[in-house]
Parts: sequence; C-alpha cells; structure tokens
Amino acid sequence: MRRVVRSRVHRFNASGEVRARADALAGEEPLEVRLDGEQFTVTMRTPGDDVELVAGFLLSEGVITSMADIVEIDFASGLDPDGSRNYNVAAVRLQSGVWDRENYGARQVYTSSACGICGTASIEAVRKESAYPVTAPEPGFISPTAVLALPELLRSHQCLFDATGGVHAAGLFTAGREPELLVLREDVGRHNAVDKVLGWALEQKLMPADRAVLQVSGRASFELVQKAAMAGIPMLSAVSAPSALAVDLGRELGVTVIGFNRGTTFNAYSHELRLKDGRR
Amino acid sequence: MRRVVRSRVHRFNASGEVRARADALAGEEPLEVRLDGEQFTVTMRTPGDDVELVAGFLLSEGVITSMADIVEIDFASGLDPDGSRNYNVAAVRLQSGVWDRENYGARQVYTSSACGICGTASIEAVRKESAYPVTAPEPGFISPTAVLALPELLRSHQCLFDATGGVHAAGLFTAGREPELLVLREDVGRHNAVDKVLGWALEQKLMPADRAVLQVSGRASFELVQKAAMAGIPMLSAVSAPSALAVDLGRELGVTVIGFNRGTTFNAYSHELRLKDGRR
Repeated sequence: MRRVVRSRVHRFNASGEVRARADALAGEEPLEVRLDGEQFTVTMRTPGDDVELVAGFLLSEGVITSMADIVEIDFASGLDPDGSRNYNVAAVRLQSGVWDRENYGARQVYTSSACGICGTASIEAVRKESAYPVTAPEPGFISPTAVLALPELLRSHQCLFDATGGVHAAGLFTAGREPELLVLREDVGRHNAVDKVLGWALEQKLMPADRAVLQVSGRASFELVQKAAMAGIPMLSAVSAPSALAVDLGRELGVTVIGFNRGTTFNAYSHELRLKDGRR
Repeated sequence: MRRVVRSRVHRFNASGEVRARADALAGEEPLEVRLDGEQFTVTMRTPGDDVELVAGFLLSEGVITSMADIVEIDFASGLDPDGSRNYNVAAVRLQSGVWDRENYGARQVYTSSACGICGTASIEAVRKESAYPVTAPEPGFISPTAVLALPELLRSHQCLFDATGGVHAAGLFTAGREPELLVLREDVGRHNAVDKVLGWALEQKLMPADRAVLQVSGRASFELVQKAAMAGIPMLSAVSAPSALAVDLGRELGVTVIGFNRGTTFNAYSHELRLKDGRR
C-alpha cells in the first residue's frame, strides 16, 4: 500500500560501466472493486486517493451520478497472505435502486487484460449515457493563452512524477483568463488519474464540472473524452496526440478536444468556439 | 477501418493566431473478440494486424499457446450501420478442449473501462500461468551496448508514429551482440502493440521466444512483464520507468526488467546477470 517504493537498481552506460544505486519506483497494486457484494472490476493503480478512484470510476461507468449514491466504501476485506490489511479491496454499498444490475448483467464479459475499454463485452456497450450532458459551446470559455499555460501548471505540481518519472497526471483547472488548478492526481494508469480527479469533483459536489478544463499528461483517447463527458467537462487538453475516435466523440458530444498542447502552440480538433474571444 | 485518419484542426499559438490545417490522427476503433460464439472482450485498437492482435491477446490471457489452437478467426460479423463490413468483430473458433470455459466462467466480471487488468474480476485471477516459463538467466544473453541501441532502432521504424505522433510501439529484437529487429507493431494502446508482436511470434512459430528482447516505447507495467513471460521472453526493455510491481514480477518470473533506456544509460531492475559478459 505504497505510492513510492524504493528499489535497488544497476545502472549501465555505453562504456560498459555498472553502478548499483537506489531508485524510487511508482507503486502499482491491484484494486478490486465490489458492488453490493459482487465482483465488478480490478484495476492496477497507484495506491492513494482510493475513495476518489472508486467514485470517479463508478461515475465514468455510468453507475453513480453523485456521492449520495454511495452508502459506504469498505476497505477492510483486502488482506495480505500474512493477514494484514492491504486496502486492495473496495467493497462498495450503493443506495438501493442506484445500480441496475440486470441491465449491467447483459454486459457480463470474460476476464481480459487489454488496455482501454477491455472489459466491455460488446461494442454497443462501449458508449455510456452522461447524466451531465456537456453544454453548448460559447465564446470566451477560456483564452488560448490560458490553455497554453496548463501543461506547465500541471507539470509543476506532479510530485510523484518528480520522485519516480513513471506516472501519468490529470488536473482539473478553472476556465476563464487565469486558470487555477483545482486538483491534480497521479497514477501509473492514465485512466485512473482521471477517475481520481472525477472522484474529487464528486466529493466536492462540483457536478457538472461545466466551468472546468481537464488537462492530461499523455494522449487523448476515446475513453478520456468519454470520462470528461460523463462529468460534464466541456474541454479536454492533452500534451500528446488525440486518436481519431477521440476527436469524433468530442465533436459529437460537444467536448473541445485539444492535443499537442506544448506551451507555445496547441491544436484544437473540435468545438474551437470556446477558444474565441467572447468580447468580439 | 483505418490506421491513419485525416482531420481538420485549428492550431493556436501564444500570439492568439489561429491557423486551420489538416492533421493526421491515429485510427482507434473497437475490436470485439468472440470465443466460440461467446463475447470475450472489446479492446480499443488501431486497425491493422488484427489476426496477430487477437492471437497475441489470447496467448497473453492464457487461452491459447500456439496458432494451432485456433481453427479460424472470422471478421465477417462486424457491420457498420449502413451494412458495410467494418472488420471490428473477430469471431474466434478454437480447437475443442483449448478453452476451459468453465474455469474462465468463474472469473466473469461486469463491464469496465479502467486501464490495465480491468476486466479481471478478482485479484487472484490477475496472475496467469505461462506455458513457456522463462529460462534461468545466463551471462552473455545480450550486451549492454546492444541494449542501449534498441530504443533508436525501434524509433527509426515507427512509421505510424512519424505520421501521427500518437501511438505506442513494441518491437521484438534478437539477443546477442548485434540486435536485429524481428518485428515492430504500433497501436494507440500499448498493450495492443505488445499483443500484436506476440501474435506475430505465434504465427512465425517462435514460441518460446527465449532468445529475444521486447523493447517498448513507454513504461514497463506489471502487465507488460506478464505478457513477456507468457511468451517466454526473458527481457523487457522500456524507454520510461517500470512500476514497482513490474519489477517484483520480473524478479519472481526470471524476466530482466530494464527501464529508462535512453540510448546512453539504462537501469536494470532484475536478473542483470543476462547483461554480464559471458566470456569472463
């Protein structure tokens, strides 16, 4: 149950020299999520902010729409072989009627280890319905200069990355002319980092997060656009490239998808109206 | 069904200038895998090399151990709304007795969109048994200089990355003093890129791939070490950081885990004996 793990490592260079040293590695442990006593999923995550992770994941999956849907999250069942608690099992109890188990049952699938939306049994089940539809694009939502500032703002707050060099980050920023970091979360899994951010927003009762921008350290995939849309977030900005499907989904759902945000230039792939000056 | 998709984009700079231009995006489409008529998984992948992807994924999952386990993979069921074939459904027919459906049934889970081993219902089911255990480490397997050359060899063959800037790559190289690229595959999902490489090795009847090194463009997660081990590959080299669990698993299974391979130095986290000079 550690965010950072010290490890012994041998560093090799081109001259054939080897030096033993200590290195800091990002923690990665499985988190099993149970819903009302039934196994729901396992994700490999960096320990920490696990309540947020579970809540944000359940929002992303369309299971809950607010923290009030959750009665409790109990971490007492996860035990190491020696009997000590490891906090790697989250037993979620939902308010009655929240989880439409029968409907979900139709989407049961076999185990999988693919990345992305791997656990989803059929293509039709990939798409989720958002309780917080993204509002119509309006000029003056955020200025291009403010968007350009986001990657460096994100990077300057990445504590775990500083220690390990091995984690993704997601940050939620206020829109407008002077973006302000609301929350930043880091994880070995980029989807987890976003889910932790969404869970934080749920806890803060910020739903829909329709005045915020989601900045991520990596690429913009289909799923990250979908996660933004599930929280009503109208803009996703990525340091790297979006996929073609991410752009398609952004166009369809009203999300402004920004890629290659490198501090001096960025590309807007959809709904660039939000970047126009609202005063003109 | 496209690897690269052209898209219109607006490029913004710090002076507030906007320029409309065409951009190339990596294709991302769902691939639904069915096993003997039952839904098994859906992965978001870059179209192309789909037979390899399916075969490599089934090897990673412990379902098959050779191409002979597969009777056929039929892509005829995937249809767009207009009725045209989209190749996004792979219906796999296995030799009888290959898939222990009952055993797998115990691991049924609900749909999920987390990254990593998300579809796996319980933590116990995360670990797979390899049909090709990694052999005991021996000196002289590969030289440190050869390892340092791998990232640039990989990078110089990344056609899809050159076009889009938005995909991961995995390459299989021969060990020894002069590493040779056997195969390179690219995908928006890093797990998919590795599965495509494993599927290629299955098709080439290279199992176990015990004289090869797997080089990946990103980080080394638990799952990538596991995928290497499922194919008997004794060394995984990553451009970025490994996670703590990836290192633990490498130590346990006999896989040499290399991280931060930046062309001038790299870190070896486990079984560095393979990097020692065999002649001394």
